[in-house]
Amino acid sequence: MALSKSEGKRVAIVGASGYGGLQLVKLISGHPQFEIAYLAGKRSAGRSWNESNPFLKIDNDIDISITNIDSIAEVSDYAILSLPNGISSQLTPLLLEKNIKVLDLSADYRFKSLDKWKEVYSNEASKYPRFDYDLCEEATYGFTEEFTDKITNSRLIACPGCYPTSCLSVLIPFLKQGLIESDGIIIDSKSGTSGGGRSPNEQLLLSECSDSIKPYGVIGHRHTSEIESIASHFAGHSVNLQFTPHLIPMVRGILSTVYARLRDPGLTAEDCKIVLEAFYKNQPFIDILPVGIYPATKWVKNTNKVMISVQVDKRNGRIVLMSVIDNLLKGQAGQAVQNLNVMHGLEPDVGLPKVNFYP
Amino acid sequence: MALSKSEGKRVAIVGASGYGGLQLVKLISGHPQFEIAYLAGKRSAGRSWNESNPFLKIDNDIDISITNIDSIAEVSDYAILSLPNGISSQLTPLLLEKNIKVLDLSADYRFKSLDKWKEVYSNEASKYPRFDYDLCEEATYGFTEEFTDKITNSRLIACPGCYPTSCLSVLIPFLKQGLIESDGIIIDSKSGTSGGGRSPNEQLLLSECSDSIKPYGVIGHRHTSEIESIASHFAGHSVNLQFTPHLIPMVRGILSTVYARLRDPGLTAEDCKIVLEAFYKNQPFIDILPVGIYPATKWVKNTNKVMISVQVDKRNGRIVLMSVIDNLLKGQAGQAVQNLNVMHGLEPDVGLPKVNFYP
Amino acid sequence: MALSKSEGKRVAIVGASGYGGLQLVKLISGHPQFEIAYLAGKRSAGRSWNESNPFLKIDNDIDISITNIDSIAEVSDYAILSLPNGISSQLTPLLLEKNIKVLDLSADYRFKSLDKWKEVYSNEASKYPRFDYDLCEEATYGFTEEFTDKITNSRLIACPGCYPTSCLSVLIPFLKQGLIESDGIIIDSKSGTSGGGRSPNEQLLLSECSDSIKPYGVIGHRHTSEIESIASHFAGHSVNLQFTPHLIPMVRGILSTVYARLRDPGLTAEDCKIVLEAFYKNQPFIDILPVGIYPATKWVKNTNKVMISVQVDKRNGRIVLMSVIDNLLKGQAGQAVQNLNVMHGLEPDVGLPKVNFYP
Amino acid sequence: MALSKSEGKRVAIVGASGYGGLQLVKLISGHPQFEIAYLAGKRSAGRSWNESNPFLKIDNDIDISITNIDSIAEVSDYAILSLPNGISSQLTPLLLEKNIKVLDLSADYRFKSLDKWKEVYSNEASKYPRFDYDLCEEATYGFTEEFTDKITNSRLIACPGCYPTSCLSVLIPFLKQGLIESDGIIIDSKSGTSGGGRSPNEQLLLSECSDSIKPYGVIGHRHTSEIESIASHFAGHSVNLQFTPHLIPMVRGILSTVYARLRDPGLTAEDCKIVLEAFYKNQPFIDILPVGIYPATKWVKNTNKVMISVQVDKRNGRIVLMSVIDNLLKGQAGQAVQNLNVMHGLEPDVGLPKVNFYP
Repeated sequence: MALSKSEGKRVAIVGASGYGGLQLVKLISGHPQFEIAYLAGKRSAGRSWNESNPFLKIDNDIDISITNIDSIAEVSDYAILSLPNGISSQLTPLLLEKNIKVLDLSADYRFKSLDKWKEVYSNEASKYPRFDYDLCEEATYGFTEEFTDKITNSRLIACPGCYPTSCLSVLIPFLKQGLIESDGIIIDSKSGTSGGGRSPNEQLLLSECSDSIKPYGVIGHRHTSEIESIASHFAGHSVNLQFTPHLIPMVRGILSTVYARLRDPGLTAEDCKIVLEAFYKNQPFIDILPVGIYPATKWVKNTNKVMISVQVDKRNGRIVLMSVIDNLLKGQAGQAVQNLNVMHGLEPDVGLPKVNFYP
Repeated sequence: MALSKSEGKRVAIVGASGYGGLQLVKLISGHPQFEIAYLAGKRSAGRSWNESNPFLKIDNDIDISITNIDSIAEVSDYAILSLPNGISSQLTPLLLEKNIKVLDLSADYRFKSLDKWKEVYSNEASKYPRFDYDLCEEATYGFTEEFTDKITNSRLIACPGCYPTSCLSVLIPFLKQGLIESDGIIIDSKSGTSGGGRSPNEQLLLSECSDSIKPYGVIGHRHTSEIESIASHFAGHSVNLQFTPHLIPMVRGILSTVYARLRDPGLTAEDCKIVLEAFYKNQPFIDILPVGIYPATKWVKNTNKVMISVQVDKRNGRIVLMSVIDNLLKGQAGQAVQNLNVMHGLEPDVGLPKVNFYP
Repeated sequence: MALSKSEGKRVAIVGASGYGGLQLVKLISGHPQFEIAYLAGKRSAGRSWNESNPFLKIDNDIDISITNIDSIAEVSDYAILSLPNGISSQLTPLLLEKNIKVLDLSADYRFKSLDKWKEVYSNEASKYPRFDYDLCEEATYGFTEEFTDKITNSRLIACPGCYPTSCLSVLIPFLKQGLIESDGIIIDSKSGTSGGGRSPNEQLLLSECSDSIKPYGVIGHRHTSEIESIASHFAGHSVNLQFTPHLIPMVRGILSTVYARLRDPGLTAEDCKIVLEAFYKNQPFIDILPVGIYPATKWVKNTNKVMISVQVDKRNGRIVLMSVIDNLLKGQAGQAVQNLNVMHGLEPDVGLPKVNFYP
Repeated sequence: MALSKSEGKRVAIVGASGYGGLQLVKLISGHPQFEIAYLAGKRSAGRSWNESNPFLKIDNDIDISITNIDSIAEVSDYAILSLPNGISSQLTPLLLEKNIKVLDLSADYRFKSLDKWKEVYSNEASKYPRFDYDLCEEATYGFTEEFTDKITNSRLIACPGCYPTSCLSVLIPFLKQGLIESDGIIIDSKSGTSGGGRSPNEQLLLSECSDSIKPYGVIGHRHTSEIESIASHFAGHSVNLQFTPHLIPMVRGILSTVYARLRDPGLTAEDCKIVLEAFYKNQPFIDILPVGIYPATKWVKNTNKVMISVQVDKRNGRIVLMSVIDNLLKGQAGQAVQNLNVMHGLEPDVGLPKVNFYP
């Protein structure tokens, strides 16, 4: 840890051995502007990163530490927290107080209202006492493309959930401009297993979930509230929608297929494609595909991209929006680094991959 | 071919080397009441079945033949056609004329109107001249649970498509009883790759489609017309719905997630479960799962089962129906044999598997 | 549990909720000669089987119990133990004393010498005190094809491990007849993840092991000792060989590729195929493939088969033997039922599947 | 194509739409020192690259051309050929004559003796007339780590096959130093499906090869000759070995498990690890793992790395060497670019990935 740090660019990664943490380590260690200053992870505290992770070696190896606020504060400018829901809220106030800027990958600061969080995350609320109403209000929701200005000036970013990122990327342009009915929206999402994390779990064993697909969390999945909350913000009124996640036998990736009704049933798929292109003009991570080309999750794997396709059923004015992301990058750690770039005054795409090997 | 055949129980399988044919060979060869009398397949005509298929040996091995109507008629009572769309229509009239009962796995007789078929299957229509309007009207749509009586007395069964079977199994009970709005139905289906057949195809290479998911045929997939046609029949009026298929990195199985609005928003998920149980009472292949238990396609793999789960969003009266099938069995060859049983006066489940090894 | 049991045919399955147990439940519940009399499993004791396992319903549903020797003895004639190594040895003596015949799927009775077991399974030995030297000597190693007579008269069967079953099936014919050098044998085995069991385990998560392959337990895997012990028995002298297992991203199946040197380098692949055919004449579960046809594990999935292929390198007299099995059936529960059949005076293949759906 | 080209750094990629070509496009388009000057591919000649490949967009888009020697020569300094065996030999002499340096990914120049090539690749030899004996002798075998000097001065590089790269990486250090017996070497290799290419092929359909493993090309696979030829070179005498490839249900990656006998049976695994570390000192793409850590192919996916582990069975002096590579990078296109770097006087690792996201 006797590395010479460039003041201002030092990043602590807390929760480094989970899947979110692994992405962060790769991204920050390869980033031209930031340095890993601190790695905390319960799995192998006391050992060096490279010794513990021969498949993900970093150039400037450091030891993995137990989470210690003072130590983090001493060596870091930013802390990215990749921790289970609830725990982040116990660390974030302490880090902020020490003038460390925080990017939180959990759901702890995604709701403006702490009471809403306590309702949606009731299990965690019963376990972790929280009184940080003000921080919930202060935190910026880190859907980078829409909140760039706020992010620039924020010291606390609540990075969006994986499913919300995928759905909101296609809903926001149409809700914000009032082009679709906000009633009757159906979101059918499909996620790879890495979304379930790295902890041992019978449901996520290859023996259980390979060569098969199943729905889960039907009605009432916690991301429904997050999606509705942001959708309502952009619609200008309360939105109530249907969200159903499915578990797919693949490692990384989310595909969301979103169904809605056009306000103007005369719009064609080409029209809607142009709407999307205009909305996301100059956004380096959003690709709008030609009408009739449908994206595979594989196309964005290991990148921070969102690929979007749109179709319209001329018979009934229904619009079908499809978006794919890598759930661990744009859906989690990649978007966190995108936000970190923005906070630091960099272009959003510095150090973030846009294309992967194929197949 | 000097097998002593029990007159009346002799089955010809035409198209034996495709995936549908492989299922039929296994099912009929192991069936207590039927015998394989004729195997036609382009792949290895002239060779014995067991020599060509060491992974699927049958007890009474026979040679694979070129399709010959006279030869089929001589040794068979039933013919099951597992052929590409369009070709079936060239063989079926000839077989019927020879008093062979036909179960067709293609789409050729699924529409009452030949003109509708020509519109939906325009490529095939341009290739294969068809004038069999009467046969289209005569043919029975082989969704066994609903058309048992007609099937009993039919000489031509149009076995349903794989996607239609999965969707209709959950839609029919609610449409027939007027419990859901017939407007605004969304069907989001997910299929394994075997639905794409055994012919070499870049899109279906493991390298291309494993570890990934993608939509295809968005708006206008040909099964949309088939589903709408049957849904309209049960609704009593024309139904216009949304159907989107997705390709899943698994071999067998379809999951359809169907979204609709309850006419009576006071109905609970438990109520809807009871509706389903009552509707499918005594049906050996339909399992209604407890509310909150969601089926994986793996649960029905290698069986002729449909497993169904239902949820209701109390907030908005929306119903979510989920069904899983094995696309090659209940979605294709298994349902054909179920129909064959019914035509032959047997119980529908004779010789058909209901449970598979797990995992 | 008020089922009328046919005395003599009642089977207790202990460890029913693991993967071995799940196979046993399906096999015994569908067996024409046996009945499930008792189900013990830690996972859902107190609940009914069908309620706990909607994907594997049985006709005569019973409750899952806590393991209780007296209760088992009261209602059973046979007990099949599908338990972790070490635990079986604590139950087996008690069951035998009550005149229950035992088929054990663990490694506890696979060595004639308890001391050898204590050496190889030292962790288990330190946890479970064992003094049953006599039972180790008495137990019959349940490689059915070779030990049919002994099995018929045995009250305690040590069912072989999955890897040993796959390797020994090809080694025994050549070692017993002295056709290969017993020195320098190399076994390179590949197994699906279900061999690792159903307990949550990070290494077996789909996210970790799909789309990848790795070796494990290189040098000193515990099955090495089991293989060497049986190989030595048939060779007539001590055999020391190389065994390397690999983890494959598939659910079920083992492929073993076995390399050895022919004593008579003039033997051709055809000769060796004839050796195998003669050795396994009339064995219902062993298929010797034509030279040049290589088996996929998929060909034997969900069956109790072994498919074997052989090649010879004329340049150097080296023989390559390949065998595939379903690790949970012929490699575990299927072979147990095969042994149960033999103990009960039935044909070995009663109630056991020989062919699966494809693909 | 009006790009300003930096003379000397212009690369033509011939066969750009196959899997090898796709890797090359990504690598060269992202390379700091080279530019794509020409793309030839039969699949979509006449269309722009980015239009044809929305999943792999490049910054300086160009049109895909029909292969034309004059056009290539006009705009390129190097040509990398990713073509089926036999075709390369028809283009290479013409390109060399125009002073284009050639890196060939096919097998056409991997043997010093054209007659040997004609024997091993007899099908291709009968289709493509070849008389370029001198070029076969002249070509440098592009196993970069061993032939760096020759590569620097060569105008024709025969890039090694995927299997040979994986096996030779572990064999060369021990053969060259005489540490293992050159007799009795067994290579058991496992490859993902992308090794079979992108052309439609029933054997490589997901439906056929997922959830399964099988051997193929047992005895006499064409890579055997290539491996033996290079192994003999390093051993100093003719080596005859056993090579068996297996098809694994994964997209990318090769694991080779190599068995041999140590000349000095007193060497330990630690000793052998030190041998490897010394041999590959300062090689940026070779990682020697600690004894007891076994590599998964996933660890090197999307990188140009080789990860190697070694074990020794003290009982019999047998050594087990394991190596993993990405078959499309270090096993094909990545090594080609590594060679291109060397030819161009760059460090071998410029523009080549060393670490991937996990999992």
